[in-house]
Formats: sequence, C-alpha cells, structure tokens
Amino acid sequence: MGQQIAFHKADQLKVKPDPEHLGFGRHFTDYMLEMDYSVDDGWHDARIVPYGPITLQPAATVFHYGQEVFEGMKAYRAEDGRILLFRPEMNMRRMNQSCARLNIPAIDEAFVTEAIMKLVDIEKDWIPSKPGQSLYIRPFIIGTESFLGVHPAESYKLIVILSPVGAYFGDTVNPVKIYVEDEYVRAVRGGIGFAKTGGNYAASLKAQSKAEELGFDQVLWLDGVEHKYVEEVGSMNIFFKVDGEVWTPALNGSILPGVTRDSVIRLLQHWGVPVKEKKISVKKLFKKAEKQKLEEVFGTGTAAVISPVGFLKWEDRLIRVGNGEIGPLSKKLYETLTGIQTGRLEDELGWMQEVSSEETAVAD
Amino acid sequence: MGQQIAFHKADQLKVKPDPEHLGFGRHFTDYMLEMDYSVDDGWHDARIVPYGPITLQPAATVFHYGQEVFEGMKAYRAEDGRILLFRPEMNMRRMNQSCARLNIPAIDEAFVTEAIMKLVDIEKDWIPSKPGQSLYIRPFIIGTESFLGVHPAESYKLIVILSPVGAYFGDTVNPVKIYVEDEYVRAVRGGIGFAKTGGNYAASLKAQSKAEELGFDQVLWLDGVEHKYVEEVGSMNIFFKVDGEVWTPALNGSILPGVTRDSVIRLLQHWGVPVKEKKISVKKLFKKAEKQKLEEVFGTGTAAVISPVGFLKWEDRLIRVGNGEIGPLSKKLYETLTGIQTGRLEDELGWMQEVSSEETAVAD
Ligand SMILES: Cc1ncc(COP(=O)(O)O)c(C=O)c1O
Ligand SMILES: Cc1ncc(COP(=O)(O)O)c(C=O)c1O
Repeated sequence: MGQQIAFHKADQLKVKPDPEHLGFGRHFTDYMLEMDYSVDDGWHDARIVPYGPITLQPAATVFHYGQEVFEGMKAYRAEDGRILLFRPEMNMRRMNQSCARLNIPAIDEAFVTEAIMKLVDIEKDWIPSKPGQSLYIRPFIIGTESFLGVHPAESYKLIVILSPVGAYFGDTVNPVKIYVEDEYVRAVRGGIGFAKTGGNYAASLKAQSKAEELGFDQVLWLDGVEHKYVEEVGSMNIFFKVDGEVWTPALNGSILPGVTRDSVIRLLQHWGVPVKEKKISVKKLFKKAEKQKLEEVFGTGTAAVISPVGFLKWEDRLIRVGNGEIGPLSKKLYETLTGIQTGRLEDELGWMQEVSSEETAVAD
Repeated sequence: MGQQIAFHKADQLKVKPDPEHLGFGRHFTDYMLEMDYSVDDGWHDARIVPYGPITLQPAATVFHYGQEVFEGMKAYRAEDGRILLFRPEMNMRRMNQSCARLNIPAIDEAFVTEAIMKLVDIEKDWIPSKPGQSLYIRPFIIGTESFLGVHPAESYKLIVILSPVGAYFGDTVNPVKIYVEDEYVRAVRGGIGFAKTGGNYAASLKAQSKAEELGFDQVLWLDGVEHKYVEEVGSMNIFFKVDGEVWTPALNGSILPGVTRDSVIRLLQHWGVPVKEKKISVKKLFKKAEKQKLEEVFGTGTAAVISPVGFLKWEDRLIRVGNGEIGPLSKKLYETLTGIQTGRLEDELGWMQEVSSEETAVAD
C-alpha cells in the first residue's frame, strides 16, 4: 500500500489496572487506531491517537440504521517475551465478509493487520501475562454519514481499541449451563447471521436475559426456520462429542464462522479425531444424551477459548453432560490452544504471528 | 411526571434551507431534545439544546452491539397556521415496544410527547408549508455504556432531531417499481422485525442495492421461513387491491406495525371498503394479476404517506399494476390522509394533536 500510519503521542499515560482484577472489556489502553473512509479518498488517514471519545453528528448512520461491523481477537505475551497474535488474517477476512454483507467498503486486510501490529507494539506494556490473560483487540467500523434515509453511508470510521482482559469466565474453567431457546430467533438463512454486526447481538439480548432469569448462563440458538437444529451459543460456536465423534453445526449462513471453531476442527483432524460439520437436531442430541452417548459439549470463542457445557435445558428437559465437569477432550483442546497461543507449545499449524518492534516503526 | 425540560439557547441560528430543495433528511434545525438514562436515576435531565455532535466513548454499546431504536413522525403546518402532529401516541407506543424487544428501558410516553411538542414549538419557523412538505421528527435511543461484552447497556441517550423535508419521492406521485426479494431476508418470526431498530435496516441494504442495480426502486420482502408470503417494502407497509377487496399482510412479528398502515385500514373500514389483514402468498398475487384482478398496489409510510406501485418483479416474471399509474383508491387515500394531516379535511377519527405555544413554555 505504501500508506503511512501517523502517531500522535499522548501527553500523559494512564495508570494500568490491577492485573488481579482485569475483568473483560472494562479497561482500555492509552492509544487507539483510527482510519476514515470517504467516497473520494477511500480508506485513508490511518493514525494511532490517544484513546478517547468519538464525536459524530446525531444523524450519523450508525445511530439509526445499524451499519456497523466488528471483530474480536487477542494478543498474547509468551513466556519468552514474544508478542503473539492468533490467526489475525482470519479476523481480517471475516471483517471483510461482514463488510460485504453490510454494504461497507472493504478494508485492505494486510494494511490493517500491519496497523494493528503497530498499535499492539506501542501498547505492549499493557499485555498482561498471567494464565488466561491477554490483550483483547476490538476493530470496528461504523457508518458516519449525517443523513436520515435507508441507504449505505458514504463515510465510515474504522477504529481499533485494546483492552487487557482476564479469563472470560473467571479463574477456573467452570462448565456453563445452557438454555436452548425455542421462541426468540437470532438469525436466519438469507439474513445477517454470518456477519459480525450489531444487529445480531441486539437481537440476542432478550433471550439472554430470559435464560439468565431462568438460572442459565448462555443461550443455545436454534435455526430460525424450523426451530429444530442447533446453531451457536451467544458468542461462541458449539461442539458435541457423541459416541466418539465430534459434531458441530455446519456453516449455513446464519452462524458466525468462528476462528476458534475452525481451529478446533483443524486440531481434531490433525489428531485423527473424527469431526463432522452437519445439521444437528436438538431432538437427536437429547436422545443421544438419554442413551449416555453425549460425552462432551463445549463452546468455542476468542473470549473463552473453550468453554465446557455442564447442563443443557430444552423445553421441559434438562440434561447433565458427562459428570458436569470439563471432559478430557475439551480439556485437551483448551490446553493445546492456549499453549499454542502463549508460545508454550509448538505452533505446528503455523497459526501465530509475532508482533516485532523492528517492523513496526511508526512516523512520529 | 413533574419533570422539567431545560432549554439552552443557541448563540446563533442557522440560515434555513431553500424550501424548493429540501430533499429528505439532509437539513437539521437549530435545536434537539436530549435525555439520559442511568440505572440510578432512570430517564432524566430532559433538555432542549443547540443541535450538535454527540460524543461517546469508543466502547459505547451502540457502536458494537446495535442496541438502538428509533421512530419517525411528522409535524405539519396547517393553512390556518396551526401545527399538527399525526397520531404521535402511536409512535411513542411503538418506540416502547421496540425498547422492550431490545432490552432498552421504557420511556414515559406522555412526557416524551410533551417534550417533542416543546421542541417542535420552538422550531416552528422551520416547518415548511408547501404541499408534501413537513417537519420530520426523528426520536432515537442509543446504548452508551462503555463496555465490551454482549449485555444490555446500563446507560442510554434519547435524542430527538428535526428535519424539514419535501415530498419523499419528489414532486409528482410516480408509481414505484418493486423487486420481490427471494434470497436475502430482512426479518423472521421470533426475531426483531416488528421493532424499529438499526439491525433490520442494516440487513436490508444489500437487497436494496441489488434491486437498484436491476432497475427497481424498492424491495418487497418475503417471509424468512418459507420465502412465499409478502411482508413489507423497504420502509413501507404494503397493500393490494384485489377484485374489490384490499389486502395487507397480517402483523406476524416480523413486519413493522406502521402507523400509516393502521390509519389506512381504519379509513377503509370507515368508508366501508372491505379490508383484510392476512397471509398473502406472492404466487397468488401474481395469479390474480394474470387474471387482471390486481387492481392497485401501494406502500404506506410516514415518509411517502401513500406510494403507488406500478411494477412488481418476482423471479422471472414482471407485472404492471393497472395502467402503471396511481389508482383511484390509492389517490383517495393519499388525498384524505394528507388532507387530514394538513388540516384541510376534517379530522373525523381524532388523529391530529395540535402543538400549542401556551402549553409548551420551557424553563430557560
Ligand atoms: C455469535 C458468535 N458466534 C461465535 C463466536 C466465536 O467466534 P471466534 O472463535 O472467532 O471468536 C463469536 C465470538 O466472536 C460470536 O460472537
Ligand atoms: C420497515 C418499515 N416498514 C413500514 C414502515 C411504515 O411505518 P409508518 O407508517 O409508521 O411510517 C416503515 C417506516 O417507518 C418502516 O421502516
């Protein structure tokens, strides 16, 4: 591209949060990456600036018509000090797939990856290093044109913010309780379910709060057409170990194609564990469970990596998966993925990209 | 409520736009209404302030998870100088229905109506008065909490902006060409289709641009489950006059319950024209058209009021409705509605609410 990335230094840096109490998505670093799009100039003016508020016209597209996409990925600090990103090219590609569905102009994936690496390098002191901790990277694009009317915006902002985070579900890997939602629908074939865009999450809030009221942690969505086939969990894809085989719902247009999902499938294939992407009816799953054939259930996502499922509730039926604790395959996947991500295990599949200070010099 | 509405005077007022070239949603008045929500204080601090940019944290909910709802209504200047709102209580009720679906705390409908009236009264010189012109009122609510994670925000902003607008489709009532979309889906039963929220519009952009590329003006959506039954148009509900009867899709959870739709149904009932809300298959409509029984088709919405449809395209079939010009019933509905709205015709159904200066004194 030959594009420059400007760097505006902050006058003062923040006090970093207590690494024992990071939580998730509450603390933000000193800088953010910004880039603008206009019809005349395309994506331009990449700059790393002090983290701070965004100012938009009240009629900006994003406030009315939901033209917004985002991504979520992590930077890890390895024991030897290296800074590693996990398959960032997958997130950039998915961001462009989301953009295409939402009529948002495509980004230059390689350039934005490079800019994110520069930002992470500048903020490297913010990367926490205790087990389960990382620097969460949140790129997002919003329509900014000041105009009321349903049409794609003519101007956009890409912003990348960073948040030091702890383990998503706390210290111990506690199996979650999942409620199979049979009334509300998150997404449907022909819709925007495969895109990482606000509308899908807005649609999910109601069912999530219903599940919580009923004492469950997360919702398992069914397909929007027949309400029969499982799709995914709130912000994770879902896997079932059934009678020695691993199943996960096939990508059908209404499921987010998770990077962790893809990585789990590849690891299983690499290990020679039979894994199938297919239509999975909730009825069949419950039948298998009755016959003691549902050995493990786990969610996969950037935030939690692998999240074992202990209980599944559907209509008036409740099943406990295994003995309600994390199963051996879930555990092995968790250990392997986090091992690769933090550089403890060899990166046999070539997933990690190192953020190196030399390559990421920025123009002051 | 006993709530006060504060008024912050602008130092300078804008030059008003040329009334001959208003367009739609491009110009905004001098003031806007703002109100905040917090868990501790509920909705509070209603204030009319100079129109200007909104400043939010980059992690604000609305930028990531689409937690946003909006409304659209109009203020008209009658020939005798009165300022009239059309069924504002319907918009406020719908706004709360949207809020309920999106886990946004409900507003006090009566209080917000009163506040909107004050704002409109202050801005009365902005209401254009040529035929087809009005002051478009856009209330919207956005989640503002600075937090990454899928959960309902704990803070919100309600904003109301005003835009003087011309006739939506230009001067003459030109019949529009409609493309029946059979691939992309806007909404599905169990989803958020009945709510006026960004995600639905974001989901619609792709199909709209596809229709435009093919030479059509608007998309007619089919149901998300079977792709067989007509639902609504981009930002209008849809009506068909078939063999002397008027049909419109029944409200099924995936269609926006339009205020104009409701008003048209009531007017037709008032006139003794048979009108049915039902499931309407696109196949049946095309059969009726072949038999010359599809007499009129029109969209209904706040922006365009009544928009006659001249052509319908579905798969490889194209039909011309009537002679491709506005039909007598569509015309009568348009004349009646705009007549009532601008005070030319008697308001037999008690729809108009007058904005009176006396009641709307604000605290300086
Ligand atoms: C709806 C949804 N499904 C699945 C996932 C998992 O995707 P990934 O593994 O890329 O984080 C996420 C989280 O990003 C999500 O939001
Ligand atoms: C999707 C959709 N359907 C229908 C309508 C018509 O509703 P109303 O008559 O209340 O303007 C609108 C516009 O508001 C809309 O956006």
